[in-house]
Amino acid sequence: MGAVLFCSNLDDPEEWRPPMTRLMPDLELRVYPNFGKADDIDVAMVWRPPAEGLGQFKNLKAILSLGAGVDQLDLSKLPASVPVARLVDDVLTTAMAEYCLLAALRYHRRFDVYERNARLKKWEYHIPRPAAQRTVGVLGLGVLGAATAEKLKLNGFKVVGWSRAPKSIAGVESFAGPDGIYKMAGKAEIVINLLPLTPETRGILNKKLFDAMPQGSYLINVGRGGHLTEDDLLPALQSGRLAGATLDVFQKEPLVADHAFWNQPAILITPHVASTGGAETAAPQVVENIRRARAGKTLLNQVDKAKGY
Amino acid sequence: MGAVLFCSNLDDPEEWRPPMTRLMPDLELRVYPNFGKADDIDVAMVWRPPAEGLGQFKNLKAILSLGAGVDQLDLSKLPASVPVARLVDDVLTTAMAEYCLLAALRYHRRFDVYERNARLKKWEYHIPRPAAQRTVGVLGLGVLGAATAEKLKLNGFKVVGWSRAPKSIAGVESFAGPDGIYKMAGKAEIVINLLPLTPETRGILNKKLFDAMPQGSYLINVGRGGHLTEDDLLPALQSGRLAGATLDVFQKEPLVADHAFWNQPAILITPHVASTGGAETAAPQVVENIRRARAGKTLLNQVDKAKGY
Repeated sequence: MGAVLFCSNLDDPEEWRPPMTRLMPDLELRVYPNFGKADDIDVAMVWRPPAEGLGQFKNLKAILSLGAGVDQLDLSKLPASVPVARLVDDVLTTAMAEYCLLAALRYHRRFDVYERNARLKKWEYHIPRPAAQRTVGVLGLGVLGAATAEKLKLNGFKVVGWSRAPKSIAGVESFAGPDGIYKMAGKAEIVINLLPLTPETRGILNKKLFDAMPQGSYLINVGRGGHLTEDDLLPALQSGRLAGATLDVFQKEPLVADHAFWNQPAILITPHVASTGGAETAAPQVVENIRRARAGKTLLNQVDKAKGY
Repeated sequence: MGAVLFCSNLDDPEEWRPPMTRLMPDLELRVYPNFGKADDIDVAMVWRPPAEGLGQFKNLKAILSLGAGVDQLDLSKLPASVPVARLVDDVLTTAMAEYCLLAALRYHRRFDVYERNARLKKWEYHIPRPAAQRTVGVLGLGVLGAATAEKLKLNGFKVVGWSRAPKSIAGVESFAGPDGIYKMAGKAEIVINLLPLTPETRGILNKKLFDAMPQGSYLINVGRGGHLTEDDLLPALQSGRLAGATLDVFQKEPLVADHAFWNQPAILITPHVASTGGAETAAPQVVENIRRARAGKTLLNQVDKAKGY
């Protein structure tokens, strides 16, 4: 039986070893770069692959991403015949939906304004509106997007959604395709981006999208920094087209100290905290995928390399 | 048939007239101080009663508060034989629970810290914790407290509660009585006050309570300003006993410009916006109470004058 390679500059292999070993006592987990004989490795758990790629691992049967997305992997540089799986983790999913609910409620109830006013000693009343009269748009209706849409619905919001291919979620008005995104944006006072980052979605949070949103809308980006066309954001905030933006992801992280987004009253920056996976809860899925890879079966949450997610 | 007196410096009678008239076409609504003959008035809808009291209205059969609380009425100065009802309004209840959820999530996910850090250009990661590992304590388990506890539960929090008399809410560990409040506080990292303001609860948010809470806890006051012992709050924040406070109500509103609470980084001030009633949704209850008063029946949400709520 082969060995599993663990390769990440973000994740601690010693958090993963105990829950995985409980489920697979004969697991041999080797941490990059101390992986011994390359031919022993049959499965790779990776955040990013090593700089030299994974080509040296001739017996690789599966690449298991340690993230919900796979954009940090350059799929074109991975061995073409090896299947790739994403991590779908309930803890990660719940944390993401919770962050999105909080960010949406914060705008819905004007806490962004009250935070500023408290510093200005300003008592200014804004009449609250019922959540049922507030429409939130979710870009991306995969696992994370669907969970977020459900959580928003559960808390009374009206929810619309958009995805590349048509999807149906009860109680969510869904749009699809290249034009659908602008139709959806026209209805959404708060837009939340949860799309996977692909060549098609890179830069999709841009002037054209903002112009389609109602005047005074809000943007929440928890996808990837690459989704946002950065140069379009400040003008949209300055014109009032957008009243605020919550950004959890950036093209370069940590966000550099002289970046124009810092200290903008209308931008809330959070340091990529919308969700984090948990080894404890994700271990069963990873172990199952190791078994599937060795048995030659389709992986759980296997990525469609043509689509990029 | 009598006439209904409307007396409020906060509420607009012309918002109430259409939905009430739809339900009671022969309604005669007279707005203070133009109420005509005092003897015509048989029901009073009031926020605060007029300065001269309600004694001149000899035929009064009911006093209907325009608020969820009745502390703004001096019950001892109202005609003793006239029953008083509170307003229990679904829109108000939902808005209140929503505000409390937002304020709790904001601390749970450290948005208070990220807001400050964004202004300081500071990228500092705090690992999110699942809501199931965060205990929120709710003071007061009446209509508003119970709705808030349910909403917190629905969003994954662990919820404990306290009320004067023992109450049972599924999935909520409940405490009661004078000592119970400190037992509850010992478990709650976030305490939300939704108590009615009575002589017993005045000043109940004080050093003794804060000292019973875990180090680094949070306070959310959406009850009344009179619940908070103001002089105890800043020392509790300075010592780190409390890590933050969200205050929606104050002893004097609007909060005076030179109040020490303004511009405190650890205090979020909101201008009494946690909830507002809606005439549209509350009209059926008010009209029903006018009918009940005239028929000599017990009112909906009738106040126990001895308890004060």
